[in-house]
Amino acid sequence: MGGDNAPGDVVAGAVHAARDLGLRVALVGLPEPIAVELAKHGGKPDTVTIVPVSEVIEMEEQPAQAARHKKDSSIVVGLRMVKEGQAGAFVSAGNTGAVMAAAIMYLGRIKGIERPTLVALMPLSGKLTVFLDVGANADCRPNHLLQFAQMAAAYLERTWKVERPKVALLNIGEEEAKGSSLTQEAYALLAKSGLNFIGNVEGRHVPTDVADVIVTDGFTGNVVVKTMEGMADFIMNQLRSAIKSRPWYAAAGLALTPAFNQMRKKMDYREYGAGPLLGVNGLVFVGHGRSDARAIFSALRVAREAVQSGMLDALRETAPPRAKA
Amino acid sequence: MGGDNAPGDVVAGAVHAARDLGLRVALVGLPEPIAVELAKHGGKPDTVTIVPVSEVIEMEEQPAQAARHKKDSSIVVGLRMVKEGQAGAFVSAGNTGAVMAAAIMYLGRIKGIERPTLVALMPLSGKLTVFLDVGANADCRPNHLLQFAQMAAAYLERTWKVERPKVALLNIGEEEAKGSSLTQEAYALLAKSGLNFIGNVEGRHVPTDVADVIVTDGFTGNVVVKTMEGMADFIMNQLRSAIKSRPWYAAAGLALTPAFNQMRKKMDYREYGAGPLLGVNGLVFVGHGRSDARAIFSALRVAREAVQSGMLDALRETAPPRAKA
Repeated sequence: MGGDNAPGDVVAGAVHAARDLGLRVALVGLPEPIAVELAKHGGKPDTVTIVPVSEVIEMEEQPAQAARHKKDSSIVVGLRMVKEGQAGAFVSAGNTGAVMAAAIMYLGRIKGIERPTLVALMPLSGKLTVFLDVGANADCRPNHLLQFAQMAAAYLERTWKVERPKVALLNIGEEEAKGSSLTQEAYALLAKSGLNFIGNVEGRHVPTDVADVIVTDGFTGNVVVKTMEGMADFIMNQLRSAIKSRPWYAAAGLALTPAFNQMRKKMDYREYGAGPLLGVNGLVFVGHGRSDARAIFSALRVAREAVQSGMLDALRETAPPRAKA
Repeated sequence: MGGDNAPGDVVAGAVHAARDLGLRVALVGLPEPIAVELAKHGGKPDTVTIVPVSEVIEMEEQPAQAARHKKDSSIVVGLRMVKEGQAGAFVSAGNTGAVMAAAIMYLGRIKGIERPTLVALMPLSGKLTVFLDVGANADCRPNHLLQFAQMAAAYLERTWKVERPKVALLNIGEEEAKGSSLTQEAYALLAKSGLNFIGNVEGRHVPTDVADVIVTDGFTGNVVVKTMEGMADFIMNQLRSAIKSRPWYAAAGLALTPAFNQMRKKMDYREYGAGPLLGVNGLVFVGHGRSDARAIFSALRVAREAVQSGMLDALRETAPPRAKA
């Protein structure tokens, strides 16, 4: 039921994943609209089930409150299915804050992990870059950043088979002494962590392949991801209006359409569909509110990789031996 | 002597400003290389003087140390000229940290201003957006953000004749309750400040004309500005290689060159050349390390506007009546 294009695109992506990947998908939501959408795809594939609920958490609702009170919502029921072992992973393009709040509430944290973290899987450079935190934690302490980096590295190693992923710290200069008190202290922790820590990177490095993991606090990470979207929109709009400004530009622009499409594909968040919420006791993937059918399909594929690779076990191994509140 | 293209482009921009704007420009630096560059422009215009120094602060030097010890450097001597009234403003494309450190050391802060702040003048939306802080203060308190906003608004009102500039707070959601503890407290201060505060904006709003002033801490601001540069470079490179990939794309790309140039112009930092350092007792403008002759010319024009409009008086009026350490 979540995201701007639900339930139409969500159902379409799920049907596609069921048919092409052989996935078993439970569609958790209001049964009538789901049935209507399924009918458009020639009915329900055998591996798709409907799990009916009576409530929906809207995009604008206050996350923690909605997660607590709407117990028969698609988000809460879906997460409960993960907790009870009825589902291997939960995928949502809905209210991100509500998914995070409900995941912490109903799945709990992995023992020893102080703060779960939301990850963006970036396709820009042509290879996968894991960028985090993108909004789960607006205020962070140095140890949170260390744990984010450890979980992201474990995820890349286990699920994506990246050996000794290169971990970088987002900062305002490349030298060790640069930055805020948070990044200076996080730098020291990362340097002695045993991770393959390559040091500081700057904002201009985010759309490059310089690192496998780029770690930052959830305030900065969220601003960065949205700034990148804003810049991509801005440049494409400028280009479009420049091309429209003269008839011969328009003709040349038309000839270039495949080249433009090729470029846009590289910046397409749908490549990976959704990013994992790392640190909760279960596999949860949060997609973009703008998710379309292809994004949902990709998100389900990414979730399947995580289940099959035993990602949760890998994350549990990163937690320090002593439990922390 | 500062920036990647000094002294060639700095001298070229200064000569251009002297000739076209009738500006009196003092070139502070090593006299021999400056004389060599001036000779390329048919010699020294009458309104250009050379102020010889024996030292240069390099781009990589530790800012505070260099500012303290290199007393006969172009940065320190230039700022001293402002302090002693021999110059109305100081413009540099050199080591940003050293300019800031030296400005605070030799000019001092405006009474009542806790932290000077470095501003980016953004040309993207077609109208001027003042974005700050972009790196002077990695760790900020809520009152710093309030003072940044007050100074930026005063600058826009006095120098750029913008009435009641719209002030926005960069945050990770548009609702009042969103964000880090810093932004939540800064929101409350801005809301009761008497400024024309329009609330929170997100990263995607930075390249738009939604506000006249966008205020954030120096860590986030620096990361945002560099992310925007990184995205612009990334997209232009992608476009270039997509166009090169087939002969008929290349032909169409060639036909579109004027349209591309028109677009690039809108994202060109050289439009305003340099951003002011607000809060020190004198007019200081810091340009991009990549500054070319056109950027230096623009920076000198922007500095002249500030001098002629009495910007420093406007900033002094924003400071609270009681002095603060």
